[in-house]
Amino acid sequence: MSLRRQNPQLDSEGRLRHFLSIEGLGRTILTEILDTAESFAGVGSQQVKKVPLLRGKTIVNLFFEASTRTRTTFELAAKRLSADVLNINIASSAAVKGESLLDMLHNLEAMQSDLFVVRHSESGAAHFIARHVAPHVSVINAGDGRHAHPTQAMLDMFTIRRHKGDFGQLRVAIVGDIMHSRVARSQIHALTTLGTAEVRVVAPATLLPTAVEQLGVHVFHDLAEGLRDCDVVIGLRLQRERMEGALLPSEEEFFERYGLTERALAHARPDAIVMHPGPINRGVEIDSAVADGPQAVILEQVTLGIAVRMAVMSMVLGRPPGAEQGETT
Amino acid sequence: MSLRRQNPQLDSEGRLRHFLSIEGLGRTILTEILDTAESFAGVGSQQVKKVPLLRGKTIVNLFFEASTRTRTTFELAAKRLSADVLNINIASSAAVKGESLLDMLHNLEAMQSDLFVVRHSESGAAHFIARHVAPHVSVINAGDGRHAHPTQAMLDMFTIRRHKGDFGQLRVAIVGDIMHSRVARSQIHALTTLGTAEVRVVAPATLLPTAVEQLGVHVFHDLAEGLRDCDVVIGLRLQRERMEGALLPSEEEFFERYGLTERALAHARPDAIVMHPGPINRGVEIDSAVADGPQAVILEQVTLGIAVRMAVMSMVLGRPPGAEQGETT
Amino acid sequence: MSLRRQNPQLDSEGRLRHFLSIEGLGRTILTEILDTAESFAGVGSQQVKKVPLLRGKTIVNLFFEASTRTRTTFELAAKRLSADVLNINIASSAAVKGESLLDMLHNLEAMQSDLFVVRHSESGAAHFIARHVAPHVSVINAGDGRHAHPTQAMLDMFTIRRHKGDFGQLRVAIVGDIMHSRVARSQIHALTTLGTAEVRVVAPATLLPTAVEQLGVHVFHDLAEGLRDCDVVIGLRLQRERMEGALLPSEEEFFERYGLTERALAHARPDAIVMHPGPINRGVEIDSAVADGPQAVILEQVTLGIAVRMAVMSMVLGRPPGAEQGETT
Repeated sequence: MSLRRQNPQLDSEGRLRHFLSIEGLGRTILTEILDTAESFAGVGSQQVKKVPLLRGKTIVNLFFEASTRTRTTFELAAKRLSADVLNINIASSAAVKGESLLDMLHNLEAMQSDLFVVRHSESGAAHFIARHVAPHVSVINAGDGRHAHPTQAMLDMFTIRRHKGDFGQLRVAIVGDIMHSRVARSQIHALTTLGTAEVRVVAPATLLPTAVEQLGVHVFHDLAEGLRDCDVVIGLRLQRERMEGALLPSEEEFFERYGLTERALAHARPDAIVMHPGPINRGVEIDSAVADGPQAVILEQVTLGIAVRMAVMSMVLGRPPGAEQGETT
Repeated sequence: MSLRRQNPQLDSEGRLRHFLSIEGLGRTILTEILDTAESFAGVGSQQVKKVPLLRGKTIVNLFFEASTRTRTTFELAAKRLSADVLNINIASSAAVKGESLLDMLHNLEAMQSDLFVVRHSESGAAHFIARHVAPHVSVINAGDGRHAHPTQAMLDMFTIRRHKGDFGQLRVAIVGDIMHSRVARSQIHALTTLGTAEVRVVAPATLLPTAVEQLGVHVFHDLAEGLRDCDVVIGLRLQRERMEGALLPSEEEFFERYGLTERALAHARPDAIVMHPGPINRGVEIDSAVADGPQAVILEQVTLGIAVRMAVMSMVLGRPPGAEQGETT
Repeated sequence: MSLRRQNPQLDSEGRLRHFLSIEGLGRTILTEILDTAESFAGVGSQQVKKVPLLRGKTIVNLFFEASTRTRTTFELAAKRLSADVLNINIASSAAVKGESLLDMLHNLEAMQSDLFVVRHSESGAAHFIARHVAPHVSVINAGDGRHAHPTQAMLDMFTIRRHKGDFGQLRVAIVGDIMHSRVARSQIHALTTLGTAEVRVVAPATLLPTAVEQLGVHVFHDLAEGLRDCDVVIGLRLQRERMEGALLPSEEEFFERYGLTERALAHARPDAIVMHPGPINRGVEIDSAVADGPQAVILEQVTLGIAVRMAVMSMVLGRPPGAEQGETT
């Protein structure tokens, strides 16, 4: 119990303070994120795509690993909440001339930043930073090494809930390079926490983490079997740049055996949706006929991702929608 | 007629949807751009250089070719219209890790962007993108290869109209490297469409496109003759970086024969204005005495360029000045 | 007298127009900066960290030398004043393709910029730019070569005044690499102008500029003696990257003789504060026990730096707090 209270993601009243990983968060908080995202889902189609909720807040995109795509979605979410955004690209900047990471963080805190959105190539980086930030600063993990990518997982949950409703009735298959995927790890935790009836991973043994069954998933090595009767099929990017050693004979063979083609998809339920965190490798893990087909919701995931990031930002800053009264200029 | 209706730049009601090239646009639309720019020309000298017209719109500067100068003018125009701006520099970013251009565009669309401002080193890139964007997204061409740079041409027209009024009375000379200049191409189309009495190009044969006369211009190889009695003299940047092969003996000889000097300018009308799209090469295509002299309006072009870009942005987004009523926050 | 009137930093009515160096500014102006900063010091802890004072102003961060840290503080100060900010990194951009510095500046002026924040590796760059800008543009020096870093010096003064009150009672020691430090140069001018009772520099002879005594400081080569009874101790970053030739035997020996340790600090007054412009080199010019100790106000300097930059920006733009009435949208 006392360990649970020390969950670094929650404050003393059990509200979200940081958003670092799905692990350690209960179904109530995850559902609150989805419900809050629902309230932001309409902002993007308004004439004025903006709410004044985080006006005057300072949000710092702290990217130790370049990722224009992810940075863009966070920057847009922040701007649509009317926050001020600073982009700091540490990978390419001379930001750290001999300065330690912590000294740099303390400096950004001293500038009265409210939120760090952290992307880092090392697992655990966002946790490390969250452990050391001042009480007034929150941290959102925008991807750390092979560990977690929790906003991606929550936008996937949001997409699933909007299409399929109750997780308790669903069979979900995650297909491909599970081992190197922080996205898959976060998805599995989110799906099980939300009570998904059955979560499957479909991959060759070489692309599965050891003891993956202990996460509560069913393992399939055969794609047709793995997809059979599924409601949701999630493809993963083949992380070619992360592959160390010869885990795969070739991309062609991978596509042959695990590529999401129309033929493979026929094994899933006829109303199954197909998801992918992007960017997609056409002809490697997914066929264009499927990626651009009627069952794909890949671009909708991107749209809903903005709402989910707005939700998490407003929650960690203690300002869910409806809390904007009483501001001064 | 049906071909005309399919003009990709106009919507079904004949209003500007994309702004890709001057070609294909009629005098009415070009005049509407100039009139709209006129209504924005005062914004830059207000205490508060900002109008709320595009508040909550998302404008993406999508630069496949670095150009701080052009990017800056579009960024400022967008900010003075109160839009949110994202700068994406594809040339230098890892944005495209194996992702196709179209997949990247569809992602940006899914983020509910409203407008892409596209700069690309290949001719036709902006048209290609415009052909593939979603119905809710507009495209402005900020320069594509040797093809077009229509906002530059329109700011030139705006500058000319402010100084000289009716195009029907004017003699305009464009001097220098016509062949490699997307600016010249767009200027020629704009000038002829707006009914300019005489449009001249003045250049050595090696720097002229073949069959340039078919664009409706008079060709001169001699600078003095070409400038004789002109109302407007436009210099072009000598695109040294674009020259393939030995089209010119030397910069010195070019300046000798085609440089805009006070002596050469004396052949034009005494009240002629001198324009240049910048950045200028002093002592190559223009002499400092002229560039900094009383007839030059080169910096005024920059100022008016912000108003023209504001005009085009507000028109393609269907929100010309006066349309801001009824917004919700 | 007439020379004094030509002070490039003041307008004809003696108000701050540019902020280039502390030299040439009197106690009245420096005190006005501190008083204005005081009025902004609370903005950073408001719910909405923003005032509408510079709404619609265009501020350009013109960095000829990369400095994420300094750029960030100016960008934040500008955003908290509601200005529009453009970041132009000339060092890394292709901004200057053959264009002269002055032509580039005149272009930015023509875009109706209001303020250039200039960082440059050459001494005198900000003065040069200020001499050539149009009447409607102000310049703030964000560090030029070894010459000056006046906003840093003023945030140091602000920190000292908040902790210690009247400068007339204070003994201040500046320790370390005085010779290569633009910060030290600006601090010395600010401290003497504000009437500090005693200003000391503590350094080996090789790290002192020649004739430093003429600036009105007392020179000490021994750290213990230099710190004796001081109210304020300022460490400086050892500018390793600027050292030309062997001015120091080794970093270890420097720390041994001039490092700010608890033992050294014991010579100062018990309530002395310890300052440093950052980023700090732990174990080189300052010991972690001191940098993180109870007497250090290093991070507070960063916080107060935002207020000082807001003050200078609003003053050079002629819009100190309380002047925001009568704006139009």
